[in-house]
Amino acid sequence: MLPITGTFLDEITHDIPSQNWGREEWARDFDAMRAIGIDTVILIRAGYQQYATYPSRVLQQQMNIFPVYLDLVDLFLEQAERCGMTFYFGTFDSGNYWQNGQYEKEADLNRRFCDEFMERYGQRPAFGGWYISHEISVYNDGMMNVYETLSTHLRNLKPVPILISPYIKGIKQFGSEAISPEQHRKEWDAVFSRLQGLVDIVAFQDGNVPLENLGDYLAINKSLADQYDIRSWSNVETFDRDMPIKFPPIDARKLRYKMEQAEKSRVEKLITFEFSHFMSPYSIYPAAHHLYQRIVEWKS
Amino acid sequence: MLPITGTFLDEITHDIPSQNWGREEWARDFDAMRAIGIDTVILIRAGYQQYATYPSRVLQQQMNIFPVYLDLVDLFLEQAERCGMTFYFGTFDSGNYWQNGQYEKEADLNRRFCDEFMERYGQRPAFGGWYISHEISVYNDGMMNVYETLSTHLRNLKPVPILISPYIKGIKQFGSEAISPEQHRKEWDAVFSRLQGLVDIVAFQDGNVPLENLGDYLAINKSLADQYDIRSWSNVETFDRDMPIKFPPIDARKLRYKMEQAEKSRVEKLITFEFSHFMSPYSIYPAAHHLYQRIVEWKS
Amino acid sequence: MLPITGTFLDEITHDIPSQNWGREEWARDFDAMRAIGIDTVILIRAGYQQYATYPSRVLQQQMNIFPVYLDLVDLFLEQAERCGMTFYFGTFDSGNYWQNGQYEKEADLNRRFCDEFMERYGQRPAFGGWYISHEISVYNDGMMNVYETLSTHLRNLKPVPILISPYIKGIKQFGSEAISPEQHRKEWDAVFSRLQGLVDIVAFQDGNVPLENLGDYLAINKSLADQYDIRSWSNVETFDRDMPIKFPPIDARKLRYKMEQAEKSRVEKLITFEFSHFMSPYSIYPAAHHLYQRIVEWKS
Repeated sequence: MLPITGTFLDEITHDIPSQNWGREEWARDFDAMRAIGIDTVILIRAGYQQYATYPSRVLQQQMNIFPVYLDLVDLFLEQAERCGMTFYFGTFDSGNYWQNGQYEKEADLNRRFCDEFMERYGQRPAFGGWYISHEISVYNDGMMNVYETLSTHLRNLKPVPILISPYIKGIKQFGSEAISPEQHRKEWDAVFSRLQGLVDIVAFQDGNVPLENLGDYLAINKSLADQYDIRSWSNVETFDRDMPIKFPPIDARKLRYKMEQAEKSRVEKLITFEFSHFMSPYSIYPAAHHLYQRIVEWKS
Repeated sequence: MLPITGTFLDEITHDIPSQNWGREEWARDFDAMRAIGIDTVILIRAGYQQYATYPSRVLQQQMNIFPVYLDLVDLFLEQAERCGMTFYFGTFDSGNYWQNGQYEKEADLNRRFCDEFMERYGQRPAFGGWYISHEISVYNDGMMNVYETLSTHLRNLKPVPILISPYIKGIKQFGSEAISPEQHRKEWDAVFSRLQGLVDIVAFQDGNVPLENLGDYLAINKSLADQYDIRSWSNVETFDRDMPIKFPPIDARKLRYKMEQAEKSRVEKLITFEFSHFMSPYSIYPAAHHLYQRIVEWKS
Repeated sequence: MLPITGTFLDEITHDIPSQNWGREEWARDFDAMRAIGIDTVILIRAGYQQYATYPSRVLQQQMNIFPVYLDLVDLFLEQAERCGMTFYFGTFDSGNYWQNGQYEKEADLNRRFCDEFMERYGQRPAFGGWYISHEISVYNDGMMNVYETLSTHLRNLKPVPILISPYIKGIKQFGSEAISPEQHRKEWDAVFSRLQGLVDIVAFQDGNVPLENLGDYLAINKSLADQYDIRSWSNVETFDRDMPIKFPPIDARKLRYKMEQAEKSRVEKLITFEFSHFMSPYSIYPAAHHLYQRIVEWKS
């Protein structure tokens, strides 16, 4: 079975509780990642609203961010280096500008913020990819401009792969406002025709649609991405969207089924949102410890 | 104090997160059950919608179930045998037919599904009871037919006790749509008059009504069941229905009070929904570990 | 940094699940409190609705309380004595009378209930404060009478400090019904002008307002309390109000920021709601274990 070899790092988030880890706890978690073959770590976002992962001057000036007590970018780069992993840097999400139509402002701020990142961390050996953190599910002209501005700028700063991880506007997340598979195909045909050459890898989230339809969506996504020369990964979510609690680790059986479906669709790599909360032996959620055991069993 | 000596096994559910246990984790949990005197385990349902506990041909054909990676029926029988427990087999819940008035379809599918169970596992020494998993709270003519069809069929397959575990349409679960104790008595008078001779044991759920009214409901249930020659157990729920999180382990004080009330009502046995999540020393919820300690203390 | 040196004890609550601790578990938790310098423990309420922390005759007669299996007041006093801490006794909350305008009934019951507490536990060496558990956020004439009656009565029973811990009617808890900082100032000017000389210490809850406005509110609170000769503590909440789950332990970064803001406002002491669930190394929430580690690091 194609294993999960990449994970997001989610320590600035809007709906997943912090595990309150320090240096040591993160180090042992990277060890656990490495032990099951994780070779890629992706910072979900380097900042969100007034929260930042490193003490950025740019964000201090423009966003009046709260103090940064521990430089997570430095820490994650250090751990990725120690463990031989590639680190993808996730852009800043204002939680405000692009959600309110101020697309240029979001892009401009990010350009300056990524310049600052390059100055501070650009030469670090583990840094090997960009992740544009702004998630979309349908065509949106303003966001196309953001992607265009950012990917041109980022590629110029360092020519490493640029990743996005969109969601499907599916029933499990949107109920009656969900779009049909046909509409999904049309939307992403339009999106990819704009992003061709700008984005290198797409890793659709796989948890927004009913499990029984996942195979169909994966097939649509793969064939569209192929058509526009974009590489396909799958973001095999390891949290459970079917429970009244937001969110517990996923049922191992659903995870395995999703991994099998992703492999069938011939994506080249599986990543997940995300290891540390939902499948780590050190997670604050004990069901994640057992999920890790199941993954170890499946590999042997 | 009358101890809890039976538990449901809940590994196909719609609202309780999976613990992601494998063979070893289940084995140690059965050890913990045995240590406090559990002698009866009841599979809450052998399948639900497209999920199944064993790789059933019948369900593959009719329900297009997802792959079964671990045969839980086999595993639970094996553990029950090892620990000297009686295993009750819970019927399949389509999550669809009977909820939409297709009572015959639900019953027919279950007949074939239970035939298959008998072929595969009917001779296993721990198998000693049937559990009709379809839960009702008021009289429903269609469901009476389901119970009638199923109990006749099951008794024919193997003449072991048939258990049901209904809920009370109480305030804690139904708010203003709850029914009064008098209405509850009328409904169950009607139900039991149909189920007499078909169902052997009734174990009402005890968490749907305010704690201060539990004694009254228990008395009604016991006297009605006696009247129709149905044996009474109490399903002393070990999850807490009073919290904003669905669901944590229950407060030990409420559990003890409910056990005392059940004993007072002179039911013959206490079972619970359910040991592994809510009172096990190995639960993913640490409050369950402490609840187990309290139960050990109460016994000594 | 000004450390947290006081905590509520929350074992009768309406929305935080019980940890199901017995004597031993509480004892080790008090050890963990002492290890980081906790010198003050405040019983959040000695009873709520039909639940009580000690087997009170008064509550048995008037509230028909459920059985008390473990005397928590005795246990907490014993632990506080062992650990050299001061114990504040929290009054009874009917969960009914004062919420429905029956202010006198709430006050009368509490007078008799506190008399009973004095008889049973008044001479215990750790007992050193009263906590009036009824929380308000704006001026309320009926509640002023409750505070007046109670504080006069309590001071007469034993002249030790009287504490309250009000909430701010802020956006994070009340959304569009929140009041402005100016309105908050007016309300509490009115409240304090009535409570001057009756209440000794006020510890506002600090989690009801956006983090970026906390400093402003703390300044308002401190200057008002000073004006009316009331001592200021801050109730630095250690649960997270920003998550979909009610409630996980707070993100350590937010906690640190709140502690820094509180210190800046020159309050004399930091207490928290509450140690045992949200920052204890023995909490049922593992994120609390890590929060404890962070607090240990910050102190060194």
